[in-house]
Amino acid sequence: MLRLTLDMDDVLANTHKKLVNIILNDFDSLLTEEQLHSKALKELLHPKQLKRLNKIIDSPGFFADIEVMDGAKETVYRLSHFYEVFIATACMEFPTSFKDKFDWLHRHFSFIPWTNIVFCGYKSIIHSDYLIDDHVRNLMAFKGEGILFSAPHNLQNRAFKRVANWEEISELFLPVA
Amino acid sequence: MLRLTLDMDDVLANTHKKLVNIILNDFDSLLTEEQLHSKALKELLHPKQLKRLNKIIDSPGFFADIEVMDGAKETVYRLSHFYEVFIATACMEFPTSFKDKFDWLHRHFSFIPWTNIVFCGYKSIIHSDYLIDDHVRNLMAFKGEGILFSAPHNLQNRAFKRVANWEEISELFLPVA
Repeated sequence: MLRLTLDMDDVLANTHKKLVNIILNDFDSLLTEEQLHSKALKELLHPKQLKRLNKIIDSPGFFADIEVMDGAKETVYRLSHFYEVFIATACMEFPTSFKDKFDWLHRHFSFIPWTNIVFCGYKSIIHSDYLIDDHVRNLMAFKGEGILFSAPHNLQNRAFKRVANWEEISELFLPVA
Repeated sequence: MLRLTLDMDDVLANTHKKLVNIILNDFDSLLTEEQLHSKALKELLHPKQLKRLNKIIDSPGFFADIEVMDGAKETVYRLSHFYEVFIATACMEFPTSFKDKFDWLHRHFSFIPWTNIVFCGYKSIIHSDYLIDDHVRNLMAFKGEGILFSAPHNLQNRAFKRVANWEEISELFLPVA
């Protein structure tokens, strides 16, 4: 069975959407929702705003209520019948998030056993046939075949095969029903 | 640079010693210290005692004050000049331990950056040239060269190259001073 490893933030979980909502509601910013979805937040926000946002991300509970990405649950469930599915999230930068992330995965993807969950720093450590991730740096470090999941911060990249959503992952990895 | 991945419990941290002390001090058991170091605790204890022990392991703080294995700190520091050192601990079974383990590693092995720390379930996911681990199941699943770190629960195994302590790891992996 081939192994397929999935990133969590902005692949399984709509983390960017939660950040955009926080900026729109709580930050004194003139950026529109459309602009906030057009490129990396680190290119759009002031350093002070980024620092404030990082503090929010590193608060207990931030990861607890993030929305599941459209179609992710159903597609991952089907994928788990054809692949050995692992979930790998680079969360060592935010140690406060460990428990929230683990609980979130258990709540929304309970069919993925705890044996197949990985919290890491660099994804070069991941031994897998495929990795679906929104960060080019993770795919660059990865030794298998990397698939880029479209996100505002990676729209310019042309180096990796790209998927725009879970429907496209389904088309790429699942047999025609 | 070759990559060397180190397990945490009973390789970097003397977890077994802490468990033995708990059994000797708090459990109503006739087992001697010598017996408790002779084979796997799951072969020595009653199911009820094992359940109690697992509950203790899963309590916040259990991993916070475990002793560092003799010679580990100095040897890992020297190894980090010759290898890309990662630390991988299979701790998904005990989610309460995440923060304690992360803090313990930061306190005792602060020269290992957070980028090189991995919390996982199965170690088959680890992409590394070497893995030093006390669990045969982890080495069996691992694709690189596995080295067995001697522990009461693995004394019968003959399938892997074995080290008894950190001095032997130093001899195996470091150039003669």
